[in-house]
Amino acid sequence: MTLDEKPTILSLERAETMIAAGFRKGGELGLKPLSIAVLDAGGHLLAFGRQDGSSIMRPQIAIAKASGALGLGVSSRTIGEMAGERPSFIAALHRLSPQGLLPAAGGLLVADSEGRLLGAIGVTGDTSDNDELCALAGVAEAGFTTPG
Amino acid sequence: MTLDEKPTILSLERAETMIAAGFRKGGELGLKPLSIAVLDAGGHLLAFGRQDGSSIMRPQIAIAKASGALGLGVSSRTIGEMAGERPSFIAALHRLSPQGLLPAAGGLLVADSEGRLLGAIGVTGDTSDNDELCALAGVAEAGFTTPG
Amino acid sequence: MTLDEKPTILSLERAETMIAAGFRKGGELGLKPLSIAVLDAGGHLLAFGRQDGSSIMRPQIAIAKASGALGLGVSSRTIGEMAGERPSFIAALHRLSPQGLLPAAGGLLVADSEGRLLGAIGVTGDTSDNDELCALAGVAEAGFTTPG
Amino acid sequence: MTLDEKPTILSLERAETMIAAGFRKGGELGLKPLSIAVLDAGGHLLAFGRQDGSSIMRPQIAIAKASGALGLGVSSRTIGEMAGERPSFIAALHRLSPQGLLPAAGGLLVADSEGRLLGAIGVTGDTSDNDELCALAGVAEAGFTTPG
Repeated sequence: MTLDEKPTILSLERAETMIAAGFRKGGELGLKPLSIAVLDAGGHLLAFGRQDGSSIMRPQIAIAKASGALGLGVSSRTIGEMAGERPSFIAALHRLSPQGLLPAAGGLLVADSEGRLLGAIGVTGDTSDNDELCALAGVAEAGFTTPG
Repeated sequence: MTLDEKPTILSLERAETMIAAGFRKGGELGLKPLSIAVLDAGGHLLAFGRQDGSSIMRPQIAIAKASGALGLGVSSRTIGEMAGERPSFIAALHRLSPQGLLPAAGGLLVADSEGRLLGAIGVTGDTSDNDELCALAGVAEAGFTTPG
Repeated sequence: MTLDEKPTILSLERAETMIAAGFRKGGELGLKPLSIAVLDAGGHLLAFGRQDGSSIMRPQIAIAKASGALGLGVSSRTIGEMAGERPSFIAALHRLSPQGLLPAAGGLLVADSEGRLLGAIGVTGDTSDNDELCALAGVAEAGFTTPG
Repeated sequence: MTLDEKPTILSLERAETMIAAGFRKGGELGLKPLSIAVLDAGGHLLAFGRQDGSSIMRPQIAIAKASGALGLGVSSRTIGEMAGERPSFIAALHRLSPQGLLPAAGGLLVADSEGRLLGAIGVTGDTSDNDELCALAGVAEAGFTTPG
Protein backbone atom coordinates (compact mmCIF):
# COMPACT_ATOMS: atom_id res chain seq x y z
CA MET A 1 0.00 0.00 0.00
CA THR A 2 1.45 3.32 -1.03
CA LEU A 3 0.27 6.03 1.33
CA ASP A 4 -0.23 8.96 -0.99
CA GLU A 5 -0.56 11.86 1.45
CA LYS A 6 2.58 13.68 2.63
CA PRO A 7 3.20 12.50 6.18
CA THR A 8 4.98 14.79 8.63
CA ILE A 9 5.24 12.33 11.51
CA LEU A 10 7.13 9.06 11.66
CA SER A 11 4.52 6.92 13.40
CA LEU A 12 4.84 3.24 14.25
CA GLU A 13 2.47 2.51 11.37
CA ARG A 14 4.75 4.34 8.93
CA ALA A 15 7.81 2.62 10.36
CA GLU A 16 6.18 -0.77 9.82
CA THR A 17 5.26 0.25 6.28
CA MET A 18 8.92 1.11 5.66
CA ILE A 19 10.13 -2.24 6.96
CA ALA A 20 7.58 -4.19 4.94
CA ALA A 21 8.53 -2.28 1.79
CA GLY A 22 12.22 -2.94 2.41
CA PHE A 23 11.61 -6.66 2.79
CA ARG A 24 9.43 -6.69 -0.34
CA LYS A 25 12.19 -5.00 -2.33
CA GLY A 26 14.67 -7.55 -1.02
CA GLY A 27 12.37 -10.33 -2.20
CA GLU A 28 12.00 -8.78 -5.64
CA LEU A 29 15.78 -8.49 -5.99
CA GLY A 30 16.36 -12.00 -4.65
CA LEU A 31 18.54 -10.76 -1.80
CA LYS A 32 19.67 -12.63 1.28
CA PRO A 33 17.54 -12.39 4.45
CA LEU A 34 17.50 -8.81 5.73
CA SER A 35 17.20 -6.98 9.02
CA ILE A 36 15.66 -3.50 9.05
CA ALA A 37 15.53 -0.93 11.85
CA VAL A 38 13.63 2.36 11.90
CA LEU A 39 14.69 4.97 14.47
CA ASP A 40 13.04 8.23 15.49
CA ALA A 41 14.90 11.53 15.13
CA GLY A 42 16.51 11.05 18.53
CA GLY A 43 17.98 7.68 17.53
CA HIS A 44 15.52 5.56 19.51
CA LEU A 45 14.15 2.36 18.02
CA LEU A 46 10.61 2.59 16.64
CA ALA A 47 10.32 -0.71 14.80
CA PHE A 48 12.52 -3.60 13.80
CA GLY A 49 12.28 -6.85 11.89
CA ARG A 50 14.80 -9.61 11.22
CA GLN A 51 13.94 -12.08 8.47
CA ASP A 52 14.38 -15.79 9.12
CA GLY A 53 18.02 -16.69 8.51
CA SER A 54 19.39 -13.18 9.07
CA SER A 55 22.34 -13.57 11.42
CA ILE A 56 22.39 -12.62 15.08
CA MET A 57 24.45 -9.41 14.99
CA ARG A 58 22.16 -7.91 12.34
CA PRO A 59 20.02 -6.04 14.88
CA GLN A 60 23.04 -4.05 16.07
CA ILE A 61 24.27 -3.47 12.50
CA ALA A 62 20.91 -2.24 11.23
CA ILE A 63 20.54 0.05 14.25
CA ALA A 64 24.12 1.35 13.92
CA LYS A 65 23.62 2.21 10.24
CA ALA A 66 20.61 4.32 11.13
CA SER A 67 22.11 5.69 14.34
CA GLY A 68 25.29 6.84 12.68
CA ALA A 69 23.33 8.60 9.95
CA LEU A 70 21.43 10.54 12.61
CA GLY A 71 24.55 11.18 14.65
CA LEU A 72 26.38 12.91 11.83
CA GLY A 73 23.44 14.05 9.72
CA VAL A 74 24.49 12.12 6.60
CA SER A 75 23.85 8.70 5.08
CA SER A 76 25.89 5.72 6.28
CA ARG A 77 27.30 5.58 2.73
CA THR A 78 28.80 9.03 3.30
CA ILE A 79 30.15 7.86 6.65
CA GLY A 80 31.82 5.03 4.76
CA GLU A 81 33.49 7.55 2.46
CA MET A 82 34.58 9.62 5.45
CA ALA A 83 36.06 6.47 7.00
CA GLY A 84 38.16 5.99 3.87
CA GLU A 85 39.43 9.57 3.92
CA ARG A 86 39.74 10.11 7.66
CA PRO A 87 39.88 6.71 9.33
CA SER A 88 40.98 7.91 12.75
CA PHE A 89 38.14 10.44 12.90
CA ILE A 90 35.47 7.80 12.30
CA ALA A 91 37.25 5.33 14.58
CA ALA A 92 37.04 7.86 17.39
CA LEU A 93 33.30 8.20 17.00
CA HIS A 94 32.53 4.56 17.74
CA ARG A 95 32.97 5.03 21.46
CA LEU A 96 31.08 8.31 21.53
CA SER A 97 27.83 6.86 20.19
CA PRO A 98 25.85 4.52 22.47
CA GLN A 99 24.54 2.58 19.47
CA GLY A 100 27.65 2.94 17.32
CA LEU A 101 27.85 3.95 13.70
CA LEU A 102 28.43 1.83 10.62
CA PRO A 103 30.56 3.14 7.75
CA ALA A 104 28.77 1.35 4.90
CA ALA A 105 25.70 2.02 2.75
CA GLY A 106 22.26 0.96 3.93
CA GLY A 107 21.49 3.69 6.47
CA LEU A 108 19.46 6.67 5.31
CA LEU A 109 18.05 9.74 6.99
CA VAL A 110 14.27 10.02 6.79
CA ALA A 111 12.62 13.41 6.27
CA ASP A 112 9.20 14.71 5.32
CA SER A 113 8.49 16.39 1.99
CA GLU A 114 9.73 19.70 3.42
CA GLY A 115 13.05 18.18 4.44
CA ARG A 116 12.35 18.14 8.18
CA LEU A 117 14.30 15.31 9.79
CA LEU A 118 12.04 12.59 11.25
CA GLY A 119 14.38 9.66 11.82
CA ALA A 120 16.45 7.09 9.97
CA ILE A 121 16.28 3.60 8.49
CA GLY A 122 19.03 0.99 8.52
CA VAL A 123 19.10 -2.15 6.38
CA THR A 124 21.61 -5.00 6.49
CA GLY A 125 21.96 -8.54 5.21
CA ASP A 126 23.07 -8.33 1.59
CA THR A 127 25.70 -6.12 -0.06
CA SER A 128 25.69 -2.55 1.18
CA ASP A 129 24.50 -1.28 -2.19
CA ASN A 130 21.58 -3.69 -2.17
CA ASP A 131 20.81 -2.88 1.44
CA GLU A 132 20.56 0.77 0.46
CA LEU A 133 18.14 -0.01 -2.38
CA CYS A 134 15.84 -1.60 0.18
CA ALA A 135 16.20 1.37 2.53
CA LEU A 136 15.27 3.68 -0.34
CA ALA A 137 12.23 1.53 -1.14
CA GLY A 138 11.10 1.86 2.46
CA VAL A 139 11.53 5.63 2.48
CA ALA A 140 9.61 6.03 -0.78
CA GLU A 141 6.78 3.65 0.12
CA ALA A 142 5.95 5.60 3.28
CA GLY A 143 5.88 8.93 1.46
CA PHE A 144 9.10 10.26 2.97
CA THR A 145 12.29 11.64 1.45
CA THR A 146 15.95 11.21 2.28
CA PRO A 147 18.12 14.35 2.50
CA GLY A 148 21.26 14.78 0.39
CA MET B 1 -6.07 -14.20 13.54
CA THR B 2 -5.34 -17.16 15.77
CA LEU B 3 -2.97 -19.53 14.04
CA ASP B 4 -4.35 -22.93 15.00
CA GLU B 5 -1.49 -25.21 14.06
CA LYS B 6 1.24 -25.86 16.64
CA PRO B 7 4.28 -23.91 15.49
CA THR B 8 7.73 -25.17 16.41
CA ILE B 9 9.71 -22.25 15.01
CA LEU B 10 9.67 -18.62 16.13
CA SER B 11 9.67 -17.00 12.69
CA LEU B 12 9.56 -13.26 12.01
CA GLU B 13 5.93 -13.70 10.98
CA ARG B 14 5.09 -15.27 14.34
CA ALA B 15 7.03 -12.58 16.17
CA GLU B 16 5.05 -9.90 14.36
CA THR B 17 1.83 -11.74 15.22
CA MET B 18 2.85 -11.69 18.89
CA ILE B 19 3.55 -7.96 18.82
CA ALA B 20 0.28 -7.16 17.06
CA ALA B 21 -1.65 -9.26 19.57
CA GLY B 22 0.08 -7.56 22.48
CA PHE B 23 -0.82 -4.12 21.13
CA ARG B 24 -4.41 -5.25 20.52
CA LYS B 25 -4.71 -6.47 24.11
CA GLY B 26 -3.32 -3.15 25.33
CA GLY B 27 -5.97 -1.35 23.31
CA GLU B 28 -8.74 -3.55 24.70
CA LEU B 29 -7.58 -2.87 28.25
CA GLY B 30 -7.12 0.86 27.61
CA LEU B 31 -3.44 0.77 28.56
CA LYS B 32 -0.79 3.42 27.96
CA PRO B 33 1.26 3.19 24.75
CA LEU B 34 3.37 0.03 24.78
CA SER B 35 6.69 -1.19 23.44
CA ILE B 36 7.09 -4.89 22.65
CA ALA B 37 10.23 -6.86 21.81
CA VAL B 38 10.50 -10.47 20.67
CA LEU B 39 13.89 -12.21 20.97
CA ASP B 40 15.04 -15.54 19.61
CA ALA B 41 16.37 -18.29 21.89
CA GLY B 42 19.84 -16.76 21.68
CA GLY B 43 18.57 -13.44 23.02
CA HIS B 44 18.84 -11.65 19.69
CA LEU B 45 16.13 -9.25 18.56
CA LEU B 46 13.66 -10.66 16.04
CA ALA B 47 11.01 -7.93 15.97
CA PHE B 48 10.11 -4.79 17.86
CA GLY B 49 7.46 -2.11 17.85
CA ARG B 50 7.04 1.07 19.92
CA GLN B 51 3.60 2.66 19.89
CA ASP B 52 3.34 6.42 19.35
CA GLY B 53 3.87 8.13 22.70
CA SER B 54 5.82 5.30 24.31
CA SER B 55 8.90 6.91 25.90
CA ILE B 56 12.41 6.67 24.55
CA MET B 57 13.93 4.19 27.00
CA ARG B 58 11.18 1.65 26.33
CA PRO B 59 13.16 -0.24 23.67
CA GLN B 60 15.88 -1.09 26.19
CA ILE B 61 13.33 -1.98 28.88
CA ALA B 62 11.30 -4.28 26.62
CA ILE B 63 14.45 -6.01 25.41
CA ALA B 64 15.84 -6.33 28.96
CA LYS B 65 12.63 -7.95 30.21
CA ALA B 66 12.89 -10.60 27.51
CA SER B 67 16.68 -10.88 27.72
CA GLY B 68 16.67 -11.41 31.47
CA ALA B 69 14.02 -14.11 31.13
CA LEU B 70 16.21 -15.98 28.68
CA GLY B 71 19.32 -15.34 30.73
CA LEU B 72 17.96 -17.05 33.83
CA GLY B 73 15.32 -19.31 32.27
CA VAL B 74 12.40 -17.79 34.18
CA SER B 75 9.90 -14.98 33.67
CA SER B 76 10.91 -11.41 34.48
CA ARG B 77 8.25 -11.54 37.22
CA THR B 78 10.23 -14.31 38.88
CA ILE B 79 13.40 -12.23 38.48
CA GLY B 80 11.57 -9.46 40.31
CA GLU B 81 10.84 -11.86 43.17
CA MET B 82 14.47 -12.98 43.19
CA ALA B 83 15.55 -9.33 43.36
CA GLY B 84 13.44 -8.95 46.51
CA GLU B 85 14.95 -12.02 48.13
CA ARG B 86 18.51 -11.80 46.87
CA PRO B 87 19.12 -8.21 45.74
CA SER B 88 22.90 -8.45 45.49
CA PHE B 89 22.65 -11.52 43.29
CA ILE B 90 20.42 -9.77 40.77
CA ALA B 91 22.46 -6.56 41.04
CA ALA B 92 25.56 -8.50 40.06
CA LEU B 93 23.88 -9.84 36.93
CA HIS B 94 23.28 -6.42 35.43
CA ARG B 95 26.91 -6.05 34.45
CA LEU B 96 27.13 -9.57 33.06
CA SER B 97 24.36 -9.21 30.49
CA PRO B 98 24.96 -7.03 27.43
CA GLN B 99 21.23 -6.24 27.18
CA GLY B 100 20.60 -6.16 30.92
CA LEU B 101 17.75 -7.77 32.82
CA LEU B 102 14.64 -6.21 34.30
CA PRO B 103 13.23 -7.46 37.60
CA ALA B 104 9.55 -6.75 36.88
CA ALA B 105 6.70 -8.60 35.19
CA GLY B 106 6.18 -8.28 31.44
CA GLY B 107 8.90 -10.59 30.16
CA LEU B 108 7.96 -14.19 29.32
CA LEU B 109 9.76 -17.17 27.89
CA VAL B 110 8.27 -18.48 24.65
CA ALA B 111 8.11 -22.24 23.96
CA ASP B 112 6.34 -24.56 21.56
CA SER B 113 3.56 -26.94 22.64
CA GLU B 114 6.18 -29.50 23.71
CA GLY B 115 7.92 -26.97 25.96
CA ARG B 116 10.95 -26.47 23.70
CA LEU B 117 12.34 -22.98 24.29
CA LEU B 118 12.08 -20.73 21.22
CA GLY B 119 12.67 -17.23 22.57
CA ALA B 120 11.10 -14.57 24.77
CA ILE B 121 8.78 -11.58 24.66
CA GLY B 122 9.09 -8.35 26.66
CA VAL B 123 6.35 -5.74 27.08
CA THR B 124 6.61 -2.34 28.79
CA GLY B 125 4.64 0.89 29.04
CA ASP B 126 1.89 0.31 31.60
CA THR B 127 2.01 -1.37 35.01
CA SER B 128 4.09 -4.52 35.08
CA ASP B 129 0.98 -6.66 35.65
CA ASN B 130 -0.73 -5.15 32.63
CA ASP B 131 2.42 -5.48 30.56
CA GLU B 132 2.43 -9.19 31.37
CA LEU B 133 -1.19 -9.61 30.27
CA CYS B 134 -0.18 -8.26 26.88
CA ALA B 135 2.83 -10.56 26.73
CA LEU B 136 0.56 -13.51 27.49
CA ALA B 137 -1.84 -12.43 24.76
CA GLY B 138 1.03 -12.39 22.29
CA VAL B 139 2.22 -15.84 23.30
CA ALA B 140 -1.28 -17.32 23.02
CA GLU B 141 -2.15 -15.66 19.72
CA ALA B 142 0.87 -17.15 17.99
CA GLY B 143 0.13 -20.65 19.26
CA PHE B 144 3.01 -20.80 21.71
CA THR B 145 3.23 -21.55 25.43
CA THR B 146 5.21 -20.01 28.25
CA PRO B 147 7.05 -22.37 30.61
CA GLY B 148 6.48 -22.30 34.33
CA MET C 1 12.35 38.62 28.99
CA THR C 2 9.19 36.55 29.00
CA LEU C 3 8.43 35.30 25.50
CA ASP C 4 4.69 35.57 25.32
CA GLU C 5 3.87 33.59 22.21
CA LYS C 6 3.27 29.83 22.49
CA PRO C 7 6.38 28.16 21.12
CA THR C 8 6.13 24.71 19.55
CA ILE C 9 9.85 24.15 19.01
CA LEU C 10 12.60 23.84 21.61
CA SER C 11 15.25 25.95 19.89
CA LEU C 12 18.71 26.74 21.25
CA GLU C 13 17.45 30.26 22.01
CA ARG C 14 14.60 28.86 24.10
CA ALA C 15 16.93 26.45 25.83
CA GLU C 16 19.24 29.33 26.77
CA THR C 17 16.24 31.29 28.02
CA MET C 18 15.31 28.35 30.24
CA ILE C 19 18.81 28.11 31.69
CA ALA C 20 19.04 31.85 32.35
CA ALA C 21 15.64 31.80 34.07
CA GLY C 22 16.66 28.85 36.22
CA PHE C 23 19.84 30.62 37.33
CA ARG C 24 17.88 33.81 38.05
CA LYS C 25 15.42 31.88 40.22
CA GLY C 26 18.34 30.32 42.07
CA GLY C 27 19.73 33.78 42.71
CA GLU C 28 16.40 35.07 43.98
CA LEU C 29 16.10 32.12 46.36
CA GLY C 30 19.71 32.42 47.50
CA LEU C 31 20.54 28.88 46.40
CA LYS C 32 23.96 27.28 45.98
CA PRO C 33 25.59 27.41 42.55
CA LEU C 34 23.55 25.43 40.03
CA SER C 35 24.08 23.42 36.88
CA ILE C 36 21.28 23.26 34.31
CA ALA C 37 20.94 21.05 31.23
CA VAL C 38 18.29 21.22 28.51
CA LEU C 39 17.82 18.15 26.29
CA ASP C 40 15.79 17.71 23.12
CA ALA C 41 13.01 15.10 22.94
CA GLY C 42 15.53 12.44 21.96
CA GLY C 43 17.63 13.05 25.06
CA HIS C 44 20.44 14.92 23.29
CA LEU C 45 22.03 17.96 24.90
CA LEU C 46 20.88 21.31 23.53
CA ALA C 47 22.38 23.71 26.06
CA PHE C 48 24.13 23.57 29.40
CA GLY C 49 25.54 25.95 31.98
CA ARG C 50 27.41 25.33 35.24
CA GLN C 51 27.67 28.27 37.63
CA ASP C 52 31.02 29.07 39.19
CA GLY C 53 31.49 26.85 42.23
CA SER C 54 29.10 24.11 41.07
CA SER C 55 30.95 20.82 41.53
CA ILE C 56 32.44 18.71 38.77
CA MET C 57 29.91 15.86 38.60
CA ARG C 58 27.03 18.30 38.20
CA PRO C 59 27.00 18.07 34.39
CA GLN C 60 26.25 14.36 34.54
CA ILE C 61 23.67 14.80 37.32
CA ALA C 62 21.80 17.58 35.51
CA ILE C 63 21.80 15.56 32.29
CA ALA C 64 20.71 12.37 34.08
CA LYS C 65 17.77 14.14 35.74
CA ALA C 66 16.52 15.29 32.36
CA SER C 67 17.45 12.06 30.57
CA GLY C 68 15.64 9.85 33.06
CA ALA C 69 12.52 11.99 32.78
CA LEU C 70 12.53 11.48 29.01
CA GLY C 71 13.37 7.81 29.30
CA LEU C 72 10.34 6.99 31.41
CA GLY C 73 8.04 9.86 30.45
CA VAL C 74 7.71 11.23 34.00
CA SER C 75 9.50 13.80 36.18
CA SER C 76 12.65 12.81 38.04
CA ARG C 77 10.65 13.40 41.23
CA THR C 78 8.32 10.58 40.19
CA ILE C 79 11.34 8.42 39.40
CA GLY C 80 12.49 9.08 42.96
CA GLU C 81 9.15 7.84 44.26
CA MET C 82 9.39 4.77 42.03
CA ALA C 83 12.86 4.10 43.41
CA GLY C 84 11.40 4.09 46.92
CA GLU C 85 8.65 1.65 46.00
CA ARG C 86 10.50 -0.54 43.53
CA PRO C 87 14.24 -0.09 44.12
CA SER C 88 15.40 -3.04 42.05
CA PHE C 89 13.38 -1.87 39.05
CA ILE C 90 15.01 1.57 39.03
CA ALA C 91 18.43 0.07 39.79
CA ALA C 92 18.10 -2.08 36.69
CA LEU C 93 17.46 0.94 34.50
CA HIS C 94 20.78 2.63 35.25
CA ARG C 95 22.68 0.36 32.91
CA LEU C 96 20.06 0.56 30.17
CA SER C 97 20.29 4.33 29.74
CA PRO C 98 23.44 5.76 28.17
CA GLN C 99 23.12 8.96 30.20
CA GLY C 100 21.63 7.34 33.29
CA LEU C 101 18.63 8.47 35.29
CA LEU C 102 18.47 10.29 38.61
CA PRO C 103 15.76 9.43 41.13
CA ALA C 104 15.39 12.89 42.69
CA ALA C 105 13.43 16.05 41.92
CA GLY C 106 14.87 18.65 39.54
CA GLY C 107 14.23 17.01 36.18
CA LEU C 108 11.08 17.96 34.29
CA LEU C 109 9.61 17.09 30.94
CA VAL C 110 9.13 20.08 28.62
CA ALA C 111 6.07 20.29 26.37
CA ASP C 112 4.35 22.93 24.29
CA SER C 113 0.96 24.39 25.22
CA GLU C 114 -0.75 21.43 23.50
CA GLY C 115 1.20 18.93 25.58
CA ARG C 116 3.48 17.77 22.78
CA LEU C 117 6.77 16.57 24.25
CA LEU C 118 9.73 18.75 23.21
CA GLY C 119 12.48 17.78 25.63
CA ALA C 120 13.48 18.03 29.27
CA ILE C 121 15.34 20.22 31.74
CA GLY C 122 17.51 19.06 34.62
CA VAL C 123 18.72 21.25 37.49
CA THR C 124 21.14 20.32 40.26
CA GLY C 125 23.19 22.03 42.96
CA ASP C 126 20.86 22.75 45.87
CA THR C 127 18.19 20.57 47.49
CA SER C 128 16.12 18.59 45.02
CA ASP C 129 13.02 20.61 45.89
CA ASN C 130 14.84 23.86 45.21
CA ASP C 131 16.35 22.47 42.05
CA GLU C 132 12.86 21.69 40.84
CA LEU C 133 11.66 25.23 41.54
CA CYS C 134 14.39 26.50 39.24
CA ALA C 135 13.47 23.94 36.57
CA LEU C 136 9.86 25.09 36.77
CA ALA C 137 10.97 28.72 36.43
CA GLY C 138 12.85 27.81 33.28
CA VAL C 139 9.90 25.98 31.77
CA ALA C 140 7.53 28.87 32.50
CA GLU C 141 9.86 31.61 31.31
CA ALA C 142 10.21 30.04 27.87
CA GLY C 143 6.46 29.63 27.43
CA PHE C 144 6.43 25.86 27.83
CA THR C 145 4.52 23.48 30.10
CA THR C 146 5.51 20.36 31.99
CA PRO C 147 3.24 17.31 31.70
CA GLY C 148 1.71 15.65 34.75
CA MET D 1 31.50 42.57 23.23
CA THR D 2 35.23 42.15 23.60
CA LEU D 3 36.22 41.96 27.25
CA ASP D 4 39.43 43.93 27.31
CA GLU D 5 40.87 43.05 30.70
CA LYS D 6 43.08 39.97 31.00
CA PRO D 7 40.99 37.30 32.69
CA THR D 8 42.66 34.64 34.79
CA ILE D 9 39.56 32.59 35.53
CA LEU D 10 37.37 30.66 33.12
CA SER D 11 33.98 31.62 34.56
CA LEU D 12 30.61 30.56 33.23
CA GLU D 13 30.19 34.07 31.87
CA ARG D 14 33.45 33.80 29.92
CA ALA D 15 32.50 30.35 28.68
CA GLU D 16 29.20 31.71 27.38
CA THR D 17 31.07 34.58 25.72
CA MET D 18 33.30 32.04 23.97
CA ILE D 19 30.33 30.04 22.71
CA ALA D 20 28.50 33.14 21.47
CA ALA D 21 31.63 34.33 19.66
CA GLY D 22 32.11 30.94 18.05
CA PHE D 23 28.53 30.91 16.78
CA ARG D 24 28.92 34.48 15.50
CA LYS D 25 32.05 33.52 13.57
CA GLY D 26 30.20 30.55 12.09
CA GLY D 27 27.46 32.90 10.95
CA GLU D 28 29.95 35.29 9.37
CA LEU D 29 31.61 32.45 7.49
CA GLY D 30 28.30 30.92 6.44
CA LEU D 31 29.07 27.60 8.11
CA LYS D 32 26.69 24.75 8.89
CA PRO D 33 24.99 24.71 12.32
CA LEU D 34 27.59 24.27 15.06
CA SER D 35 27.87 22.75 18.52
CA ILE D 36 30.35 24.25 21.00
CA ALA D 37 31.50 22.93 24.37
CA VAL D 38 33.70 24.68 26.94
CA LEU D 39 35.38 22.53 29.61
CA ASP D 40 37.24 23.58 32.75
CA ALA D 41 40.85 22.54 33.35
CA GLY D 42 39.64 19.29 34.91
CA GLY D 43 37.78 18.36 31.73
CA HIS D 44 34.33 18.99 33.20
CA LEU D 45 31.65 20.71 31.15
CA LEU D 46 31.12 24.40 31.91
CA ALA D 47 28.83 25.45 29.09
CA PHE D 48 27.45 24.05 25.88
CA GLY D 49 25.23 25.10 23.00
CA ARG D 50 23.95 23.22 19.95
CA GLN D 51 22.53 25.32 17.12
CA ASP D 52 19.23 24.30 15.57
CA GLY D 53 19.93 21.66 12.93
CA SER D 54 23.23 20.47 14.41
CA SER D 55 23.03 16.67 14.52
CA ILE D 56 22.52 14.60 17.64
CA MET D 57 26.03 13.23 18.15
CA ARG D 58 27.55 16.72 18.09
CA PRO D 59 27.49 17.13 21.88
CA GLN D 60 29.79 14.13 22.32
CA ILE D 61 32.04 15.25 19.45
CA ALA D 62 32.43 18.82 20.73
CA ILE D 63 33.17 17.57 24.24
CA ALA D 64 35.63 14.94 22.95
CA LYS D 65 37.57 17.53 20.94
CA ALA D 66 38.04 19.63 24.06
CA SER D 67 38.51 16.65 26.36
CA GLY D 68 41.22 15.11 24.21
CA ALA D 69 43.06 18.43 24.05
CA LEU D 70 43.14 18.58 27.84
CA GLY D 71 43.98 14.91 28.12
CA LEU D 72 47.18 15.22 26.09
CA GLY D 73 47.92 18.92 26.53
CA VAL D 74 47.76 19.73 22.82
CA SER D 75 45.13 20.85 20.32
CA SER D 76 42.83 18.27 18.76
CA ARG D 77 44.52 19.16 15.43
CA THR D 78 47.79 17.89 16.88
CA ILE D 79 46.01 14.77 18.09
CA GLY D 80 44.87 14.27 14.51
CA GLU D 81 48.48 14.44 13.36
CA MET D 82 49.51 12.00 16.08
CA ALA D 83 46.75 9.64 14.92
CA GLY D 84 48.27 9.68 11.44
CA GLU D 85 51.76 8.92 12.75
CA ARG D 86 50.93 6.61 15.63
CA PRO D 87 47.44 5.23 15.05
CA SER D 88 47.60 2.46 17.63
CA PHE D 89 48.71 4.90 20.33
CA ILE D 90 45.70 7.14 19.77
CA ALA D 91 43.39 4.15 19.35
CA ALA D 92 44.44 2.91 22.78
CA LEU D 93 43.54 6.21 24.39
CA HIS D 94 39.89 6.05 23.40
CA ARG D 95 39.12 3.50 26.07
CA LEU D 96 41.08 5.35 28.72
CA SER D 97 39.14 8.60 28.53
CA PRO D 98 35.56 8.71 29.81
CA GLN D 99 34.68 11.46 27.34
CA GLY D 100 36.87 10.19 24.53
CA LEU D 101 39.17 12.20 22.32
CA LEU D 102 38.74 13.34 18.75
CA PRO D 103 41.69 13.41 16.33
CA ALA D 104 40.55 16.38 14.22
CA ALA D 105 40.89 20.16 14.43
CA GLY D 106 38.35 22.20 16.36
CA GLY D 107 39.50 21.55 19.93
CA LEU D 108 41.81 24.10 21.55
CA LEU D 109 43.36 24.52 24.96
CA VAL D 110 42.39 27.74 26.73
CA ALA D 111 44.93 29.66 28.82
CA ASP D 112 45.26 33.10 30.36
CA SER D 113 47.70 35.72 29.08
CA GLU D 114 50.48 34.17 31.17
CA GLY D 115 49.90 30.75 29.63
CA ARG D 116 48.25 29.20 32.68
CA LEU D 117 45.89 26.45 31.54
CA LEU D 118 42.22 27.19 32.30
CA GLY D 119 40.28 24.72 30.17
CA ALA D 120 39.45 23.90 26.57
CA ILE D 121 36.93 24.62 23.84
CA GLY D 122 35.59 22.16 21.25
CA VAL D 123 33.69 23.10 18.09
CA THR D 124 32.02 20.76 15.56
CA GLY D 125 29.55 20.95 12.70
CA ASP D 126 31.47 22.14 9.64
CA THR D 127 34.88 21.11 8.31
CA SER D 128 37.49 20.68 11.01
CA ASP D 129 39.43 23.71 9.74
CA ASN D 130 36.34 25.88 9.92
CA ASP D 131 35.44 24.48 13.33
CA GLU D 132 38.88 25.55 14.54
CA LEU D 133 38.42 29.09 13.23
CA CYS D 134 35.31 29.36 15.39
CA ALA D 135 37.15 27.94 18.40
CA LEU D 136 39.89 30.54 17.90
CA ALA D 137 37.28 33.30 17.68
CA GLY D 138 35.85 32.15 20.99
CA VAL D 139 39.26 32.11 22.68
CA ALA D 140 40.13 35.58 21.42
CA GLU D 141 36.77 37.15 22.22
CA ALA D 142 37.01 36.16 25.87
CA GLY D 143 40.53 37.54 26.23
CA PHE D 144 42.25 34.17 26.48
CA THR D 145 45.10 32.57 24.58
CA THR D 146 45.68 29.07 23.25
CA PRO D 147 49.04 27.43 23.99
CA GLY D 148 51.21 26.06 21.24
